[in-house]
Amino acid sequence: MDVKEASRKSASRSRRVLDSLLLCTGDMEHMDKYMQDKPFVLQLAVWGLRGVTQVILANNPLSGALIMAALYWASPWQGLLGTLGVLASTLTAVIMGQDSAEVSGGLHGFNGMLVSLLMGVFSSAGDWYWWLLLPVCLGSATCVFLFSGLSSVLDRWDLPVAVFPFNTVIILYLLCTGPDNPYFPHHRATPPGALELNGTELIAVEVLRGIPLGVGQIFACGALGPSLLILGAVLLYSPLLATHALLGSAVGTLAGLSTAVRHDLLYSGLSGFNGALGCMAVGGLFFTFSWRTHLFAIASAFLSAYADIALSNLLGTVGLPACSWAATLTVTLMLLQTGSLAAYRIPTHQVMAPERNLHSRSQWEAGNTADTKSTDV
Amino acid sequence: MDVKEASRKSASRSRRVLDSLLLCTGDMEHMDKYMQDKPFVLQLAVWGLRGVTQVILANNPLSGALIMAALYWASPWQGLLGTLGVLASTLTAVIMGQDSAEVSGGLHGFNGMLVSLLMGVFSSAGDWYWWLLLPVCLGSATCVFLFSGLSSVLDRWDLPVAVFPFNTVIILYLLCTGPDNPYFPHHRATPPGALELNGTELIAVEVLRGIPLGVGQIFACGALGPSLLILGAVLLYSPLLATHALLGSAVGTLAGLSTAVRHDLLYSGLSGFNGALGCMAVGGLFFTFSWRTHLFAIASAFLSAYADIALSNLLGTVGLPACSWAATLTVTLMLLQTGSLAAYRIPTHQVMAPERNLHSRSQWEAGNTADTKSTDV
Amino acid sequence: MDVKEASRKSASRSRRVLDSLLLCTGDMEHMDKYMQDKPFVLQLAVWGLRGVTQVILANNPLSGALIMAALYWASPWQGLLGTLGVLASTLTAVIMGQDSAEVSGGLHGFNGMLVSLLMGVFSSAGDWYWWLLLPVCLGSATCVFLFSGLSSVLDRWDLPVAVFPFNTVIILYLLCTGPDNPYFPHHRATPPGALELNGTELIAVEVLRGIPLGVGQIFACGALGPSLLILGAVLLYSPLLATHALLGSAVGTLAGLSTAVRHDLLYSGLSGFNGALGCMAVGGLFFTFSWRTHLFAIASAFLSAYADIALSNLLGTVGLPACSWAATLTVTLMLLQTGSLAAYRIPTHQVMAPERNLHSRSQWEAGNTADTKSTDV
Repeated sequence: MDVKEASRKSASRSRRVLDSLLLCTGDMEHMDKYMQDKPFVLQLAVWGLRGVTQVILANNPLSGALIMAALYWASPWQGLLGTLGVLASTLTAVIMGQDSAEVSGGLHGFNGMLVSLLMGVFSSAGDWYWWLLLPVCLGSATCVFLFSGLSSVLDRWDLPVAVFPFNTVIILYLLCTGPDNPYFPHHRATPPGALELNGTELIAVEVLRGIPLGVGQIFACGALGPSLLILGAVLLYSPLLATHALLGSAVGTLAGLSTAVRHDLLYSGLSGFNGALGCMAVGGLFFTFSWRTHLFAIASAFLSAYADIALSNLLGTVGLPACSWAATLTVTLMLLQTGSLAAYRIPTHQVMAPERNLHSRSQWEAGNTADTKSTDV
Repeated sequence: MDVKEASRKSASRSRRVLDSLLLCTGDMEHMDKYMQDKPFVLQLAVWGLRGVTQVILANNPLSGALIMAALYWASPWQGLLGTLGVLASTLTAVIMGQDSAEVSGGLHGFNGMLVSLLMGVFSSAGDWYWWLLLPVCLGSATCVFLFSGLSSVLDRWDLPVAVFPFNTVIILYLLCTGPDNPYFPHHRATPPGALELNGTELIAVEVLRGIPLGVGQIFACGALGPSLLILGAVLLYSPLLATHALLGSAVGTLAGLSTAVRHDLLYSGLSGFNGALGCMAVGGLFFTFSWRTHLFAIASAFLSAYADIALSNLLGTVGLPACSWAATLTVTLMLLQTGSLAAYRIPTHQVMAPERNLHSRSQWEAGNTADTKSTDV
Repeated sequence: MDVKEASRKSASRSRRVLDSLLLCTGDMEHMDKYMQDKPFVLQLAVWGLRGVTQVILANNPLSGALIMAALYWASPWQGLLGTLGVLASTLTAVIMGQDSAEVSGGLHGFNGMLVSLLMGVFSSAGDWYWWLLLPVCLGSATCVFLFSGLSSVLDRWDLPVAVFPFNTVIILYLLCTGPDNPYFPHHRATPPGALELNGTELIAVEVLRGIPLGVGQIFACGALGPSLLILGAVLLYSPLLATHALLGSAVGTLAGLSTAVRHDLLYSGLSGFNGALGCMAVGGLFFTFSWRTHLFAIASAFLSAYADIALSNLLGTVGLPACSWAATLTVTLMLLQTGSLAAYRIPTHQVMAPERNLHSRSQWEAGNTADTKSTDV
């Protein structure tokens, strides 16, 4: 009896350690309960950090802190813009009386953050150009209007709003202020199919380096170290999601190679980030993970990557970037599928970390079987 | 007792005078009853005049007559085209068997009118080019098809069709007949962000003059006198709407200044009219007026104005104007809002003059309170 | 009594002959029953042939065989691409577990077929460029994703998915691989409004020849013989549909003449095929045939043709063709109509050959009258 108890104790201890480690992974729902009676500034920080991770389809404040660290590491000015964007849009949502569950889940922060990051990247006025804070705040606030309006439309098909607001606002901003604007000048985007005057050989190592950079490019970050830290933040939220991010970025690079895009797109990871987003959304997040959804995730990555090249070529004719339109549209298309893929679909409001999705699915199926049995009896 | 009766009589008399004055303002619903047994031509005229005011979000035959006078004042050829357009599309709607309430409310006239006015403005064949009447009639008739089709889609979200048909038809017409078309040549639109070769100083008085012109530009009318008459017509329908029109036009001019658009856009009022439309729709018309909706109206004006600059820059690259796409899309977005703005939303089929909206809202709320009380007891 | 019996026998014999002739026309539903227990390869062939005819809004395996013969006659390489496209997308649909009724009706084949035909036509690498089979298979398979996703959205308004997937995929493909792509180069499309440097007189006979060619151009086939064979295939399915095809093509040519498009578009039938599609869909297929729907069909043909010129001018600025966007959008608009046209609308899943539609409508109406009578009694 002593031995039994000892083994039970040891098991329960190791379980407790594992549990406390697991507390930092996944959606960290216990954090919300813990934050309920904390001051508003702290709550806002957690909502903001959740918003930061929503960019990369995760939802974990610790991952958010890691990503912010990566952004400040890559460029303090970009880090500042990102912080400002996520706070501006979250605060706008609070003032406008948006649904509090959405606000605390960070759903009103990530579009604003992306808008401000991209405004900084495309600005040709250099870092620390303080006037840029004006469009950054206004653009981030506008995202809340678009999010709220689009959610009314997309709810009919149980579709997430995703980054539609970001993509719309950044395109409108870049259109408003042309390349030669006296107040807010910006770089013109070049279509990926543009001919390279001094064509050089493709360097395989650089292409491989572009794959992890593709994950960083989701935050418009083109340095290897911070990109790996961002990948680590995804890994903390869900290993399955991180795997799909790398896989999707590789697929995007493949697609870029097959259509002979400019070499610098492959090297910088810009040809991979749409593939990464398309792959992550289908492989585990919005669909229960299985070998079939895994195949669909790869198909989705290819579709996203090719659509990105097509849209970049189209928008590049007027000097605009395609941002993440391709991945957003492809994932929306995948969520609308009927047929065998639809059977794995997780309702939008029940989406959690892929590992949890898998778990609740099997529980739910077990429950169903039990139900059927009890009904049979 | 005599004094009492006298005061009652005087009160009732002043009330009657006020009532008969008020009969000419607002939606003039009594007019519909009065016209019921009149000949078809007269009815058509009233439907047409109501259609004329629907362009500027009003619905009052007297305002319509004032606006027609302003258009004939500014240019008899434009007046003729406008008349033809509103009649052609209203008659098409009657022949196609559209809903009679919609027809008599002028909902099938305003898109046709705008199409014909804009065809006239963009035509480079000069005034009194009679061949233009052919596309004017066909284009106006096409608006009915678009209105009917779009209403089936937008009804799901209780959204008005607004000027989507006009915007679509005019863009298609301008695309069909390029600048060098041998039959129907037209002017190319220039993007507002285009650099001015001989840049001059901005003249403050001209910019201020552009604000009332912005209201006239809703009817593609760039003269000050007729623009003021059009503003008067809106004032007759609803003072609140007229205030928001001027406010929105000013906001649009501000937005234009902040992005350094071409000076002639500011002077002609073209940078203000989308702001005016965006401000009018939110401030009182589709939402009950209050200080919160007033703030939202200003936000909507800014959004419309910036979106107009963006779309004008985009469409200008292929020589097309952005018309009122920006305001139409922004207002649609505002009508889709959830959160605190949604609480003030008036169902589309109950929309009337802002003053009436305010009145029926307070009545309805009083009724609600009474109900609650009686239920409590 | 003998005479009576003889006449009855003769009548029944002639009826039987007519019946067996009629078996080859219309939707040939009996074929489906006959094929139920045949091997999968034979079933796939019938699904494919049905898919081939769905391109031209018909649904008859014999017509499909005629059309395939026409395509191989015009160009064996195009015939091969078409075969591959229809098989690739039908097989993808089977693997993805799409609805079996849709698959066997050929609904998953026609978009893939059009994509592969157009990829062949626009490729500037010449015939028998075997690498082209790779994008042909991938593009056709992608159509199934788009079909499935769009059907979820369009079902809300009982709209058919039509050729939206084809139009999207081909535009994306052409955008992905620019004119100078090293692997998959293609021709640039020229806008129809482009000025002709060496302008010649219009040849009336060539313009008339363009009308039947317009029917062939639905399959991107520009030779007269095969075009007439394709027209014959439509005639076999439904004489009413064939009449509307020719009528629509003539209307499209008229529209082209009225806006002075390039002469080669009129001669090759390219200005007619959108009109033909727009006319066929409204005249008998999606609406019960009557003189009113006939007028609407002509209006739809004009709308499709003008919209095609407009979109071709727009997309031509970036070197893209407008494909059948115009007809698809116009027909979708017509299906959304309220008013007198809506009364003739046939629910999408009940659409059959126009002659059958007419028959079932009159039966249904007779039934309704009978019902009313019996209720009255």
